[in-house]
Amino acid sequence: MNERGQLTLSSNDIGKRLGVGSHNIRKDLTYLGETGTTGSGYDIKTLKEQISRCLGFDRKRKACIVGLDKTGTAILSNDMFFSKNFDIVAGFDSNINRLETLKIDIPLYPTYDIPVVIRRERIELALLTLSGETAQIVTEKLIDGGIKGIVNFSPVVLSSSDSSVYISNVDIINEFRFLSALFTLDRGEA
Amino acid sequence: MNERGQLTLSSNDIGKRLGVGSHNIRKDLTYLGETGTTGSGYDIKTLKEQISRCLGFDRKRKACIVGLDKTGTAILSNDMFFSKNFDIVAGFDSNINRLETLKIDIPLYPTYDIPVVIRRERIELALLTLSGETAQIVTEKLIDGGIKGIVNFSPVVLSSSDSSVYISNVDIINEFRFLSALFTLDRGEA
Repeated sequence: MNERGQLTLSSNDIGKRLGVGSHNIRKDLTYLGETGTTGSGYDIKTLKEQISRCLGFDRKRKACIVGLDKTGTAILSNDMFFSKNFDIVAGFDSNINRLETLKIDIPLYPTYDIPVVIRRERIELALLTLSGETAQIVTEKLIDGGIKGIVNFSPVVLSSSDSSVYISNVDIINEFRFLSALFTLDRGEA
Repeated sequence: MNERGQLTLSSNDIGKRLGVGSHNIRKDLTYLGETGTTGSGYDIKTLKEQISRCLGFDRKRKACIVGLDKTGTAILSNDMFFSKNFDIVAGFDSNINRLETLKIDIPLYPTYDIPVVIRRERIELALLTLSGETAQIVTEKLIDGGIKGIVNFSPVVLSSSDSSVYISNVDIINEFRFLSALFTLDRGEA
């Protein structure tokens, strides 16, 4: 049931919410296989489960964090970065002294162990919170270990040497820039 | 001069890099006014300056941070979140005790002072690092004070009651979800 108490949704309903024609919705949803349509539309519960399975949201993924300075450890100690879909199973840092003194509940390893640990633990995702120059080197190590996706929180734009590895660059300053460009254009300040 | 040692770029060059037709590039760039085109194309230095001015990147903006728990203070103490274009001039938290004990170089205020301080200091941008429920309430206070843009680092999707205030939702778990959906579809795992 959705927030309006409906049990089913028509392709028309979905299209309106997304600003897409109902024909496109019907076409895209055939990709899911059998979606249990009835005269009144798609069964919401079935549709959710099928989309979830199709996008891989029905299984737990292993993740790691690289860079355990203040930002990295703040993220690790913050509930808001945990989710039932992702388990952070390893932390990496190049500072051996830091690894020995940090009080953290997950196994910690030096950066040079990245390829071995990623491969052994079958880790699929990595969060990078490094302060710069080393981010690209670490990225190569992660790719070497077989990582599938990287969320980059470092202030450099990373590129992937392997086109099957996805990288998402998250940068607060860039978000500030983007927003200020929007409101500058909007208000004709320039 | 760009990284290839060129002093000018043609609309064709720019279009190829962006995957857009040269006609569209020429049309869009007329928006900048006089761009100093010569027979060999746009002067790169002039073009950069004009785009920068047009998007408001030529002036410094004041920003604040709301939420001074571990994540907020880690961001404040991390060089990578500073930029010559943005000055973080205020920090807010609802925990008065925390405000009194934190050792931070910027002025700190209780959350209820948000509208007054935003207005007085002419703060344009805010970074939200709250853990949840209170994020929407804080957003209303920021809008009340005249904020122009909000980068939301809290695990809730914020909406703006004022359509001229831009909000950018940054969520690491969502990035993980997005990447895992990409590689699931890509490799036909489902």
